[in-house]
Amino acid sequence: MISFANDYLEGAHEKVLNRLIETNMEQEFGYGSDSYSEEAIEKIKELIECPNASIRFLVGGTQTNQVVIDSVLDKFEGVLAPETGHINVREAGAIEYSGHKVLTLPSEKGKISAQSVNDYLDLFNQDETKEHMVTPGMVYISFPTEYGTLYSYDELEELSRVCHENNLPLFIDGARLGYGLVSDEADVTMKDIARFSDVFYIGGTKIGALCGEAVVFTKNNEPKQFVSIVKQHGALLAKGRLLGVQFLTLFTDNLYFDISKHAVDMSQKIKRAFLDKGYELYFDSPTNQQFVIMTNEQVKELNEHMSFATWEKYDDLHMVIRFVTSWGTSEENVEKLISYI
Amino acid sequence: MISFANDYLEGAHEKVLNRLIETNMEQEFGYGSDSYSEEAIEKIKELIECPNASIRFLVGGTQTNQVVIDSVLDKFEGVLAPETGHINVREAGAIEYSGHKVLTLPSEKGKISAQSVNDYLDLFNQDETKEHMVTPGMVYISFPTEYGTLYSYDELEELSRVCHENNLPLFIDGARLGYGLVSDEADVTMKDIARFSDVFYIGGTKIGALCGEAVVFTKNNEPKQFVSIVKQHGALLAKGRLLGVQFLTLFTDNLYFDISKHAVDMSQKIKRAFLDKGYELYFDSPTNQQFVIMTNEQVKELNEHMSFATWEKYDDLHMVIRFVTSWGTSEENVEKLISYI
Amino acid sequence: MISFANDYLEGAHEKVLNRLIETNMEQEFGYGSDSYSEEAIEKIKELIECPNASIRFLVGGTQTNQVVIDSVLDKFEGVLAPETGHINVREAGAIEYSGHKVLTLPSEKGKISAQSVNDYLDLFNQDETKEHMVTPGMVYISFPTEYGTLYSYDELEELSRVCHENNLPLFIDGARLGYGLVSDEADVTMKDIARFSDVFYIGGTKIGALCGEAVVFTKNNEPKQFVSIVKQHGALLAKGRLLGVQFLTLFTDNLYFDISKHAVDMSQKIKRAFLDKGYELYFDSPTNQQFVIMTNEQVKELNEHMSFATWEKYDDLHMVIRFVTSWGTSEENVEKLISYI
Amino acid sequence: MISFANDYLEGAHEKVLNRLIETNMEQEFGYGSDSYSEEAIEKIKELIECPNASIRFLVGGTQTNQVVIDSVLDKFEGVLAPETGHINVREAGAIEYSGHKVLTLPSEKGKISAQSVNDYLDLFNQDETKEHMVTPGMVYISFPTEYGTLYSYDELEELSRVCHENNLPLFIDGARLGYGLVSDEADVTMKDIARFSDVFYIGGTKIGALCGEAVVFTKNNEPKQFVSIVKQHGALLAKGRLLGVQFLTLFTDNLYFDISKHAVDMSQKIKRAFLDKGYELYFDSPTNQQFVIMTNEQVKELNEHMSFATWEKYDDLHMVIRFVTSWGTSEENVEKLISYI
Repeated sequence: MISFANDYLEGAHEKVLNRLIETNMEQEFGYGSDSYSEEAIEKIKELIECPNASIRFLVGGTQTNQVVIDSVLDKFEGVLAPETGHINVREAGAIEYSGHKVLTLPSEKGKISAQSVNDYLDLFNQDETKEHMVTPGMVYISFPTEYGTLYSYDELEELSRVCHENNLPLFIDGARLGYGLVSDEADVTMKDIARFSDVFYIGGTKIGALCGEAVVFTKNNEPKQFVSIVKQHGALLAKGRLLGVQFLTLFTDNLYFDISKHAVDMSQKIKRAFLDKGYELYFDSPTNQQFVIMTNEQVKELNEHMSFATWEKYDDLHMVIRFVTSWGTSEENVEKLISYI
Repeated sequence: MISFANDYLEGAHEKVLNRLIETNMEQEFGYGSDSYSEEAIEKIKELIECPNASIRFLVGGTQTNQVVIDSVLDKFEGVLAPETGHINVREAGAIEYSGHKVLTLPSEKGKISAQSVNDYLDLFNQDETKEHMVTPGMVYISFPTEYGTLYSYDELEELSRVCHENNLPLFIDGARLGYGLVSDEADVTMKDIARFSDVFYIGGTKIGALCGEAVVFTKNNEPKQFVSIVKQHGALLAKGRLLGVQFLTLFTDNLYFDISKHAVDMSQKIKRAFLDKGYELYFDSPTNQQFVIMTNEQVKELNEHMSFATWEKYDDLHMVIRFVTSWGTSEENVEKLISYI
Repeated sequence: MISFANDYLEGAHEKVLNRLIETNMEQEFGYGSDSYSEEAIEKIKELIECPNASIRFLVGGTQTNQVVIDSVLDKFEGVLAPETGHINVREAGAIEYSGHKVLTLPSEKGKISAQSVNDYLDLFNQDETKEHMVTPGMVYISFPTEYGTLYSYDELEELSRVCHENNLPLFIDGARLGYGLVSDEADVTMKDIARFSDVFYIGGTKIGALCGEAVVFTKNNEPKQFVSIVKQHGALLAKGRLLGVQFLTLFTDNLYFDISKHAVDMSQKIKRAFLDKGYELYFDSPTNQQFVIMTNEQVKELNEHMSFATWEKYDDLHMVIRFVTSWGTSEENVEKLISYI
Repeated sequence: MISFANDYLEGAHEKVLNRLIETNMEQEFGYGSDSYSEEAIEKIKELIECPNASIRFLVGGTQTNQVVIDSVLDKFEGVLAPETGHINVREAGAIEYSGHKVLTLPSEKGKISAQSVNDYLDLFNQDETKEHMVTPGMVYISFPTEYGTLYSYDELEELSRVCHENNLPLFIDGARLGYGLVSDEADVTMKDIARFSDVFYIGGTKIGALCGEAVVFTKNNEPKQFVSIVKQHGALLAKGRLLGVQFLTLFTDNLYFDISKHAVDMSQKIKRAFLDKGYELYFDSPTNQQFVIMTNEQVKELNEHMSFATWEKYDDLHMVIRFVTSWGTSEENVEKLISYI
């Protein structure tokens, strides 16, 4: 059945697969020291105009969040995050498993404000026995958020400023980074992401790769013996070439952004169709996810033709349904979806 | 430069890659619920004649060891392992990171005996305050071992018996399982491995796959909420199809064993060549790794043409050199190596 | 300076100290196997009419929370707690350090409702990918709460029922248990606490002892190899007699409750004095803590004579001040406090 | 029954108890900020002539080892220790629970040599993929050792030199420090211990206190936010005065050393008696523990009058028995023991 359930339904972009085939029998060093990884790293450094960046490839999103947060934080520190952040709700406690508390901030449509960080720090610093509390050691946000929303340039700049004034590294989870950056409503580039953050990752799993996330430490700040920490987490891939070749392809000839654009175009088309037919949106998302309020009956009917994710109950008669597109979504399937609603 | 440094130098077997391409645009469920994973699981169950087995695909070896050991052990338990076992020496403390002590047993050429397990338990059980010690909660061995050696049927049966008499699950690390099973000296099958062990894994990364290890719980004994534990370790792959398709291909038409046989043939050819030319072996390995004693000068010379791993210093004038073959080793390269020694 | 800052300002009740002296040179087994611990355990079992209870003595409150929660939870589970619960805010991340997430529930004056537990479980169980979330594995509450408030018999009964219907052990943090039970507003006994909970602890540190908390597993449910887990946490006291003698004394001749009553009487006297003089309470606490709204100026003046804890800012002109009494609070000091307000 | 089973059989030295009584009703700050702790810290600093030392009081030995090692090590580091070290064999995996591997060195009578540390580092540093191994991050030894033996001044100086040349902090476990320092065979002082080590602890539990160990960071090197780490481990005692008063008393008027001397005198007397009667020693210990080889029959007979610890089986006819004295051992009991052998 046609599915709009998530953005990891298909394999990889064909150019990525072709490059894997072409390079397949070359003998390469393992654990990230292969020539493709090195080349991919150079491509990304150029793109973000950050020659001193340190870049490493990991396999998946939760793994990346766990390894980055655990390696950046001191033992007694926790990570500030939106209460709706992926690390707080959908990673099976991977951050706590590594010993760190997720300290939650109130969020609106998945976003936190610089003010909320400031308020948290004020309360923390006023506390007479703050050594009995978890010390905030970094700030985590997602771009785009889990709700498909975006931080503006000004919001990121402000958040970044507050973080740096307080010596808190800012970590941007970019599992869907491409889908955010190519949105018509985005006013930041990947270079801005690199400048505002201390570490971020470029999602590959959801954007054209079989697997893989590129972690970028942007301020000459890769944690000491990072490779050992990755290995200790069971996250060091023997055939690092698998990640290197994929990212090299994605960052050749603008492929990463072109395929991201396709996904967002398809998503906006779906959004317009729903609006045209009088549906109400739960969030107005400018990226590759749409959250639509549908009656229980509409959901049931559509489900006979398509699969999708039930986000949450809206009220007794309605549900919030999520429709997700990706680099692999065909225009044909989008037309079919539109024809059914 | 031609390399015999390890068994993860090339990408994947071409049949594996082709199958990835053929299935690429099918929309599949994530996290291991895809149809290819399900089909691969059935194939493996049939092969090991173990209908109640529970099989899960993970990405890499250290990850698999960490997840399996942490999920099987109780909180206060440790894992008995050969002092030379991979988990004890080359996994950057991944087991301890998950909170468990590796309790070492004396090993010979990488192997432990049933007797050594018995002796350990005797001492432990006699201790007046054994609740102050780490309780042994499982036994870990590798087949083949890190030294390319094999346990015989009788040795495995005896070890298995002692483990089960003492309620200790036996875990067999099969990162190179194929290379062990196809050896002329092996007198066990994968079905025996399944019967003797409580959990084992079938290595894909070193035998034909881009990545992937198949964990098999053989006694209807998958740990409770295993998927949550995998996720918590950051080890749950979104596109589980990547693993499913690869293992499905490897376990179709005997591919896994055929390509393993090629590697072992190449390795034995190398061994015979060294012996013919008067070299001494450090271990006599019947699998895909050879450990040869060479003079420092010989090493230096050969290194101008080939790359390989320095295992350890033998004495002031000699070194132990490891030559590894894999499914991807070409006969041509083997001939070249032989011509240089 | 006279202090009402907390309830661990003095040493131990003199009867406790005297008993330590009397028993000092007896040779006793270590690690909790001493005769005094055994006798104390019997006393407590009789009091709570729970012959199958398993009782262990630990040293401090955070330690007890960490050990109990980590030993009761499965690896992939978290603990449901009021967002204001001690484990969530004032234990430096001790629960997360042991690998478990604190899952917060909305609280009112420190209390959660059975309904809030139900609502949480409903949402959790409806989730399509709940294996990506932390599974709730137990419920933590404090009696009295961190705000000096009490659950009623009916509230506890209802909470207990919901927990048990959902196989969630209920853990009651009784760091100030005595101060709650002797309150005029309490309608539960320690026997009720034992019946409603699956594990609770009787606070000694704040009620008459130099240190010590008595953990009571009430349903024949002490976690497997609990002593090993305690040792692994660094929480096993060599001279367990120190804890045994203290609890034996506290639970002889009703001492624990008599000294708790004194503290609560002193606290209520302070409360009435503040109310008489027109102050407003932040919470109306029936136990040993009072939270009073004072002007910044009043705070400053009083602080010249007394020390106390600043709870939080109320508004620009007012603060919430906490006054705590204990078994060791003298009536003389209470009179002095009253004379200054 | 009279016992020589261990050195925590009695309560505390009467001067310690008396001081607890005298200071009992003083109101003091919690968590180590009390005036007694401050005074005790000054006394110890003077004694070790180390004005920049940072001193903290913890409750027990395993706790201290866990907190110190976890706070000093980086996340990817392990601790080098004698294979017979307490942290390796008798702490229920408390070090691994905190995520760190105990890297074992061969030991003789409980001691390691500077050479063995050097050899370990040589092998480690030569390794081509040492980032896949646990990085040694500190060295742990005990003074006296678990076998009652002592390092000489020269041995400690050499070990210290090798550690510092390699940037490895040296941690000395002094659970029985007093019993080592007062031995006739000791040629080091506590000042030397402070100079050679980077962190050590002064055992109180086994030498005159109800509980308590004094951790001394000697090189202006207390780990960042150490109090938070202590709290996170559940190891921060609310009534820090309990520890402060005890150490203040022990380090007033030479009490710690005087009572240590008594224990060692009693132990040597026992040793001489055994030798006089023709028994063979397993180790010749100059401190407060004696290890004697006895026939199974002798053990059985003596056990009717005394209790003691069975160390290990010597051969089918003999056992190694441990006799321990302490500050609390009476000369009368020693005479009785001697009369029975």
